[in-house]
Amino acid sequence: MKWIEGGVCAAQGFRAAGIHVGVKTHASWKKDVALIVSDVDCAAAAVFTKNVVKAAPIHVDMAHLADGKARAIVANSGNANACAPNGEENAERMCAAAAKAVGCRAEDVLVSSTGVIGQTLNVEAIEKGMPELYAALERSPEASDAAGHAIMTTDTVKKEAAVETMIGGKTVRIGGIAKGSGMIHPNMGTMLCFLTTDCAISSAMIKTALLAAAKASFNRISVDGDTSTNDTCCVLANGLAGNTPIEAPGPDYEAFLEALQALCVDLAKRMASDGEGAKHLITCSVSGAASEESAEIISKSVISSTLTKAAIFGADANWGRVLCAMGYSGEAFQPDKVDVRFASGAGEILVCRQGRGVGFDEDLAKKILTEHDVEIRIAMGEGSGACTCWGCDITYDYIKINGDYRT
Amino acid sequence: MKWIEGGVCAAQGFRAAGIHVGVKTHASWKKDVALIVSDVDCAAAAVFTKNVVKAAPIHVDMAHLADGKARAIVANSGNANACAPNGEENAERMCAAAAKAVGCRAEDVLVSSTGVIGQTLNVEAIEKGMPELYAALERSPEASDAAGHAIMTTDTVKKEAAVETMIGGKTVRIGGIAKGSGMIHPNMGTMLCFLTTDCAISSAMIKTALLAAAKASFNRISVDGDTSTNDTCCVLANGLAGNTPIEAPGPDYEAFLEALQALCVDLAKRMASDGEGAKHLITCSVSGAASEESAEIISKSVISSTLTKAAIFGADANWGRVLCAMGYSGEAFQPDKVDVRFASGAGEILVCRQGRGVGFDEDLAKKILTEHDVEIRIAMGEGSGACTCWGCDITYDYIKINGDYRT
Repeated sequence: MKWIEGGVCAAQGFRAAGIHVGVKTHASWKKDVALIVSDVDCAAAAVFTKNVVKAAPIHVDMAHLADGKARAIVANSGNANACAPNGEENAERMCAAAAKAVGCRAEDVLVSSTGVIGQTLNVEAIEKGMPELYAALERSPEASDAAGHAIMTTDTVKKEAAVETMIGGKTVRIGGIAKGSGMIHPNMGTMLCFLTTDCAISSAMIKTALLAAAKASFNRISVDGDTSTNDTCCVLANGLAGNTPIEAPGPDYEAFLEALQALCVDLAKRMASDGEGAKHLITCSVSGAASEESAEIISKSVISSTLTKAAIFGADANWGRVLCAMGYSGEAFQPDKVDVRFASGAGEILVCRQGRGVGFDEDLAKKILTEHDVEIRIAMGEGSGACTCWGCDITYDYIKINGDYRT
Repeated sequence: MKWIEGGVCAAQGFRAAGIHVGVKTHASWKKDVALIVSDVDCAAAAVFTKNVVKAAPIHVDMAHLADGKARAIVANSGNANACAPNGEENAERMCAAAAKAVGCRAEDVLVSSTGVIGQTLNVEAIEKGMPELYAALERSPEASDAAGHAIMTTDTVKKEAAVETMIGGKTVRIGGIAKGSGMIHPNMGTMLCFLTTDCAISSAMIKTALLAAAKASFNRISVDGDTSTNDTCCVLANGLAGNTPIEAPGPDYEAFLEALQALCVDLAKRMASDGEGAKHLITCSVSGAASEESAEIISKSVISSTLTKAAIFGADANWGRVLCAMGYSGEAFQPDKVDVRFASGAGEILVCRQGRGVGFDEDLAKKILTEHDVEIRIAMGEGSGACTCWGCDITYDYIKINGDYRT
């Protein structure tokens, strides 16, 4: 498996575009609609937010995915089309406009929206811009880049990645673009992720693979603990790689899942790292837990702790907050077996042994925590369960961005 | 029932003191040890943090409360004595020092600590200062004030209140001091609260009353979602009011509970209002929920939402975040039955009707949300369950305070 260029256009037979049509009226990122189209029909699957309040596009996508097939994805930024007047009607109109341009059924188009909640989507702007958007489609790194920019909201950097692997003697590619900045929390906080692959795989198996990959990636990041109404991660698989179709578990499926999961983890970490206002990517690795599930719950509790996030922002080796966040995770464990270390490119330092503070070099700790990528390593001494989750610090800029997002 | 002066010294037979002995070495609030003593033995009860990682004083208090009796409370700020070397030994030494001064058994002293986690408590300073602390004891508003200040950490204002009510023809008083700023979340985030009453009530009934009052007050506030290792709320009842002892449910118990709960709600709101860096007290009132439990879960989810807190900081009527936080609360409900209003002394405004945005006067909304005390009123249309919870906004100062708390 290797990392390659091209993002959502890396796989054969996928074209993309991103342009400005006018949904965003005052955002700094001008592009606001993206289109991703496969040359042929695809096996398709998606995972959605678990929020009870679901945006209109999610209801539409659930219906459109009933047959496990799709051909295109259309997405806008600047308006979430959630709790908004005429939500489903407008989401369907986006699909219809894309379908007309592509020449496919509206039911074969998936739709996503991200942005402010509760305001009517300017669907006319999207319909009017569709011919231009369709005309801009191409298979190139630049086209993936344009689509990646078109789904950004408060993101400061575009998220894009692609991998290549061998399956049954054939070269298979998987690529993706994603957005997500604030409001990202396990169980799909506000994030959009569109994945494309030329792997030949059944609708059932692509769905199984996506669920597994999302569980180990997007569901293990947190920016602010808020889970949004719009989160969607979908994948289109068009089969053009020519491998023997994957229709059951086995070595081919494992190879595909490994690549898909690596891609999702990479995109998830990019999201956490670009959390609104974030200055640090925080990795929390828990080992020696009673089970993987227990390790995951504890790790998520630590990366979600506002106090731990504030301490990392201040490069303060305040391991007491780590232990505290473990303690209110809801998991049972023995505090006096817990070791905590902080690590980064600048080194590693033990700060808590068996639940008690140990003397440590404050200067080295400060140096370690001043790096952009910092890791909290927790050894629990309970069993062999391990899990890694990712988050970011909370900063003045987070407050600034979210104190006046809507107006 | 009426509000009175005197705090923890309002009830007959209680004296208090607060002085500086040297546990705090660099804090802006100089006083760091408080002592509260009853002239006679008391029925006593406490509720503690549910965090798996419990500070040493909590383990000691649990043992000392086995007989449901106590005579005094000693507490320090500046060091939490949590995850610290010799924790229980040092907590016992605090009790022993206080017991020696008071002339009671060490088992009749309750102990609390608040401050930084993981560092050895300077118990020698407390032992050395005990004669001075004991000598400072008196029954006066000034003494309650001194004790109230001695338990403050990042609090900007002292929290103190007292009430008076008639029970069985006798005047009964209940008073309290509390601290709590950051790290406050339902299930007793970092808060200390010491309550005193001259009511005659059995150990069993005072415990029942405290649990009920805490559930409707301290467990319904959130500052940052973090639940601390040290949270303690304890009550001493010395019986000097001379009422017929309350030993079972009935009108006397109800009258006592009403007063106790009002006192606890008042103190809880003061804590939320003084959340670290907070500029707003946020009250979230949910009505029309399927049940009271459901209303409480939803209300807590809203006041705990970092994005909602940031919106209130920015006086941004972003009701979408309110609906979103309701949606990920884990409770099932129909979004299209939900109405949301914002209210304060400046008025009330409907912003969401039946799950959809409605046009509203942005200037009035801004005016309403610029007040210090703002309310989010949610009507759910599901049933008759109602609950009110309290929180605060998240501000630049929260990040500043917590980015470098330890060093």
